[in-house]
Amino acid sequence: MLIPQTSSSLVESLRHRREKLANLINFPVILWSGGNSPRNFPANSFPFRASSHFLYFAGLPLSKAAIRLQAGKLELFMEDPSPSSALWHGEMPTREEIAEKIGADVARPLTELESGVEDAATIAVQDAATWTQQSQLLNRWILPQSPLQGIDLELAEAMVFLRLTHDEAALVELRKAAAVTVKAHKVGMAATPQAKLEAEVRAAMEGVIIANNMTTSYNSIVTVHGEVLHNEHYHHNLQPGDLLLADVGAETQIGWASDVTRTWPVSGKFSSTQRDIYNVVLAAHDACIAKIHPGVEYADIHLLAATAIAEGLVDLGILKGNPQDLVDIDAHALFFPHGIGHLLGLDVHDMEDLGDLAGYEAGRTRSDRFGFSYLRLNRPLRPGMLVTIEPGFYQVPAILNDANVRSKYQNVVNWQRLSDFADVRGIRIEDDVLVTTEGSEVLTAALPNDADSIENLVNI
Amino acid sequence: MLIPQTSSSLVESLRHRREKLANLINFPVILWSGGNSPRNFPANSFPFRASSHFLYFAGLPLSKAAIRLQAGKLELFMEDPSPSSALWHGEMPTREEIAEKIGADVARPLTELESGVEDAATIAVQDAATWTQQSQLLNRWILPQSPLQGIDLELAEAMVFLRLTHDEAALVELRKAAAVTVKAHKVGMAATPQAKLEAEVRAAMEGVIIANNMTTSYNSIVTVHGEVLHNEHYHHNLQPGDLLLADVGAETQIGWASDVTRTWPVSGKFSSTQRDIYNVVLAAHDACIAKIHPGVEYADIHLLAATAIAEGLVDLGILKGNPQDLVDIDAHALFFPHGIGHLLGLDVHDMEDLGDLAGYEAGRTRSDRFGFSYLRLNRPLRPGMLVTIEPGFYQVPAILNDANVRSKYQNVVNWQRLSDFADVRGIRIEDDVLVTTEGSEVLTAALPNDADSIENLVNI
Repeated sequence: MLIPQTSSSLVESLRHRREKLANLINFPVILWSGGNSPRNFPANSFPFRASSHFLYFAGLPLSKAAIRLQAGKLELFMEDPSPSSALWHGEMPTREEIAEKIGADVARPLTELESGVEDAATIAVQDAATWTQQSQLLNRWILPQSPLQGIDLELAEAMVFLRLTHDEAALVELRKAAAVTVKAHKVGMAATPQAKLEAEVRAAMEGVIIANNMTTSYNSIVTVHGEVLHNEHYHHNLQPGDLLLADVGAETQIGWASDVTRTWPVSGKFSSTQRDIYNVVLAAHDACIAKIHPGVEYADIHLLAATAIAEGLVDLGILKGNPQDLVDIDAHALFFPHGIGHLLGLDVHDMEDLGDLAGYEAGRTRSDRFGFSYLRLNRPLRPGMLVTIEPGFYQVPAILNDANVRSKYQNVVNWQRLSDFADVRGIRIEDDVLVTTEGSEVLTAALPNDADSIENLVNI
Repeated sequence: MLIPQTSSSLVESLRHRREKLANLINFPVILWSGGNSPRNFPANSFPFRASSHFLYFAGLPLSKAAIRLQAGKLELFMEDPSPSSALWHGEMPTREEIAEKIGADVARPLTELESGVEDAATIAVQDAATWTQQSQLLNRWILPQSPLQGIDLELAEAMVFLRLTHDEAALVELRKAAAVTVKAHKVGMAATPQAKLEAEVRAAMEGVIIANNMTTSYNSIVTVHGEVLHNEHYHHNLQPGDLLLADVGAETQIGWASDVTRTWPVSGKFSSTQRDIYNVVLAAHDACIAKIHPGVEYADIHLLAATAIAEGLVDLGILKGNPQDLVDIDAHALFFPHGIGHLLGLDVHDMEDLGDLAGYEAGRTRSDRFGFSYLRLNRPLRPGMLVTIEPGFYQVPAILNDANVRSKYQNVVNWQRLSDFADVRGIRIEDDVLVTTEGSEVLTAALPNDADSIENLVNI
């Protein structure tokens, strides 16, 4: 069990978070941290990751622990270390020491969390051993993917309200994650000229994250086939004419994430066609960030990106027509099929365990439209929200070779002109952007994104 | 889904494995590959790891697949890719293409695995979604940690019989894993003089594994506190007088593991006390490997290690008395509390998902004795078995500061002399050793383990 040091400001923030929770709901809450998920056998587990809702209030990645929150008070429940634990895992801090680190009011053995807890609300943890335990103790099914109801739903809504905007203690961590992620991307670019395989660039990037005693906040994408959106293969050779798309982010020891994408030329020099499309994506990226401001609808940011990309592709002769009209018929989505971004916090898609409860303002639901259905966030922006901005351009064979698609869009795509851009399979530029009272702050601004600077970083 | 290339020799071995299975049992077998285990939310999963029993017969890490084995025939069941799959995950090989790669006789949609399957034996997969599905289809509880019974037990015994010794196709993979692991350790040693934190050495080592498009076969141990046996913290500073213990192994794309430990001086030079103890551990290591031969009892190898360590500590004046007598009262276990090693194959503790069924010969059970209870393997050695040999010396505060222990062993430990060795907290030397008809072959022999060579590798 990793017990990082806690600062007095973190402890103060934890206290403040539970006081705010107490202002929102008046029933007790029990949140479990979760345990190890087995890999190929029980004793060989995946690296432990505590539940994000637990981390939000407890601040430490304790394994097999629970907290009860009521009226601003925090009770910590943890197992006593087993007799052999000191042999295998070393001397542990006592339950009381941990309680003090996180500002808990009371610390008890986990076995005391047995009766009289059925009136408490909770949220399912991902590992089966824990959700089984949650279900038994609360005497109802608590399943990770079941619809929320009753006080559990009320709790989830309160969590969303709290976690949608980040306090100073969260921002301290989010900035740490962003800084290490920026470094990982710079090292990845510099490592590319010597690398033969995607896997080697991945190693250089994740090496920075591991060396900083962090983990990746999601499975890295490091690929010359950026047109495969969630590509988790790393076996391709790097060819001089390829673009390498790297979507890699760090997560701090207490769980706060970063999420950054850059796309760079393997050779250290964009071809003219690659540079043209790169600049279309960058223009969309910059326009979106310029528009971020409290009160602005995130869906309008997505629409802005779609329009900017349509406009750029019209300028390049790939699309034909009025950009606004093209967006109206989802022509942008032929090349930019995903959403402009999502919430970021303790989860890389923050609170996605709650479905669209966090991402979508009450009363709103996903669009059926091809160009909008993958949008993960649809709310007005508020100061303290952290979002990604990640426009892209992809030539996805499954889309562009589809006979229905080709027929529907035959008059708005110049397929001949498009073939000039065959060396652009996928480009994405993604940054982490904090909404501020004045507008926005790019937490990952230390990583350049203009084409010239990218070339320079590869050629260092 | 990662689909590595398969060789004709692998396909031939897969066929041979299932023919051997058909010689052992006469009921149908269904093995599931498993699916992703969620990390902090369902879409953010840990890297997929297919079930080892599935991999043994299917040879590829297919996700959400199952195979039915009967009379030497292989039927592959896989879901059809979802419509959005090509967008997010790229073009997939078809079920038929995969069937051909693994030499399957038939390929069907997973949905056809619905009825008439209750007479089949299976083994639980670790992820909850899969064992739930197994339980539903077979109409009985299939749980990862439940005692095996009936045909499931018979299947498990057959799996143990098959997987206890490795065929050529397995050895090809095991040698690949060993080679990358050897390289990772060499790079880790060379990176140490420039490193400030344990995490930085870990990054250098895992970087080699990632760059070779492999994964770690277990959570790495890279620590200056080797006395914590399963230490998974990486935050300590490296001090010039420290020993760094690194237990890091690679796993190939189709699941075969390596497991290697080296211990080296951070400064590049062992102190005289560190070198003395190191040589005691090395002498035990070498004596064990020299003794490995078909027919030899692995428990006798453990006993040999215990005796060699006791002897070495007597020579250094730390223990007093006759080495054999000291082992009889478990005095060696004060400093070497774990077993000499374990089976290695598709799992780093091979088939440990079946409890001690693989590790312990029928009719044998774990000893109650402190010095023997952690022994994971107790069988006569046979050609084709792969085992680790990993003696160690540790000063574990939880053992050595225990009042009962100190009282029981007060006359056989020279505590004053022991205090001279305060700069030796933990040393382990671990190699992967194949039992051959002639004796043994160390698969990890390319990594030196004598003190002088270790110093040279750090000072490269």
